[in-house]
Amino acid sequence: MNNRFEEKTISSDVLFEGKIISLRVEEVELPDGKQAKRELVGHPGAVAIIPITEDGKLVLVEQYRKALNRSIIEIPAGKIEPGEDIEVTALRELEEETGYGANHFNYIQSFATSPGFANEIIHIFVAKGLYKIEKPAMGDEDEFINIIECTLEEAEQMVIDERIYDAKTAFGILYAKILLNK
Amino acid sequence: MNNRFEEKTISSDVLFEGKIISLRVEEVELPDGKQAKRELVGHPGAVAIIPITEDGKLVLVEQYRKALNRSIIEIPAGKIEPGEDIEVTALRELEEETGYGANHFNYIQSFATSPGFANEIIHIFVAKGLYKIEKPAMGDEDEFINIIECTLEEAEQMVIDERIYDAKTAFGILYAKILLNK
Repeated sequence: MNNRFEEKTISSDVLFEGKIISLRVEEVELPDGKQAKRELVGHPGAVAIIPITEDGKLVLVEQYRKALNRSIIEIPAGKIEPGEDIEVTALRELEEETGYGANHFNYIQSFATSPGFANEIIHIFVAKGLYKIEKPAMGDEDEFINIIECTLEEAEQMVIDERIYDAKTAFGILYAKILLNK
Repeated sequence: MNNRFEEKTISSDVLFEGKIISLRVEEVELPDGKQAKRELVGHPGAVAIIPITEDGKLVLVEQYRKALNRSIIEIPAGKIEPGEDIEVTALRELEEETGYGANHFNYIQSFATSPGFANEIIHIFVAKGLYKIEKPAMGDEDEFINIIECTLEEAEQMVIDERIYDAKTAFGILYAKILLNK
C-alpha cells in the first residue's frame, strides 16, 4: 500500500450511519503541515459481473436509480454482504438479477468508484458459458429489474443514447469489446 | 430520460451539506406501492481526461485519497466549479494537474460513478497533441500530486499491482488500449 502524500487523521466525526452508507468528516494534516477537512462516505463494497452469452451477447439489467432520479442500464452488480466472499456475491447477484449461472467465471480487477469522497470498491468479474437456472434465487424485494440481452453494437448505441450511464458498465463494454476482439 | 420503475419521493430529509458533498435520506414509493428508504449523496460532478502524449504515453497523477487511506494513480480529474462548462473544467484540470495543454481535445462520454447511492457524474475527455505550458496555473492548495508518464503496458502492470485502483482510470486504460490499437 502506497502512502505517498499521506494525510494523517487529526479528528474523525461520524455524522451518519445508515443501512448502506455512512458519513464522517475528518480533520487531516497535509504533507506540508497544514490542515484540511475531508468529507467521507463509507460503503461495504460491491461486485459487478460482465455476463457474455455463448453467441457473444451482453446481459444487462435496467433499474431505477433514485440517486440519479432515472432508470439506467448496467451490468449486474450488488453489495457484498457481511462475511461473504466476493466470488459468492458475484455468482449470487448474477443469479438473482439475470437468472443465469456461469460455467466460466473469472476475476478481472477491482477499483474504487469515487475515491474523492467514498471508499466503495467494486470487484469486476467476467462470466461466460452462461446457462439458465430453472428456479433462480430472488433478489432484494425492493429491487425492480428488467433484463436486456444485446449485442456489443447495441450496447455501444445505448452508451451514445445515455441509456447506459454508469462507470462499471462503461468499463464492462470496453472490456467485452477487447475480449470479443471487435 | 427513462423513468421505468420510478420511485416517487414521499419525503426528503437533508442530513448534511458540506463543501463537496451533501447527504439526504428519502422515503420513496416503489412501483408495487410499498415504501423504502434511500440514502443519497449529492456531488457537483467532475471531469476526467485521458491524456496521451505524441509518443503514445499516458500522463497519470498520483495522489493521496483519504477515503481509501492510501495513494492511488489516476487519470487527471477534478470537480466542476459552479457555472463552468465541462470543457473548461477539463482543460483547467489538465493544466493544473499535469502542466500540459492539448491541441486535440475530444469528449468521449459521461457516466455516474456510484449510481446506487450518489449522483456524481464524470465527463470523460481524451487529450492528444499535448504541449508543455510554460507557467501552468496552480491547482488547489490542499492537493499534492506526483505526475507519472508511462506506456500502456506500464499502466496495465500498475492495474495488476493495484497502484491504479480507480474506475475512471480503469476505463481510460481500456479506452487508450483500443485507441492505440494494442
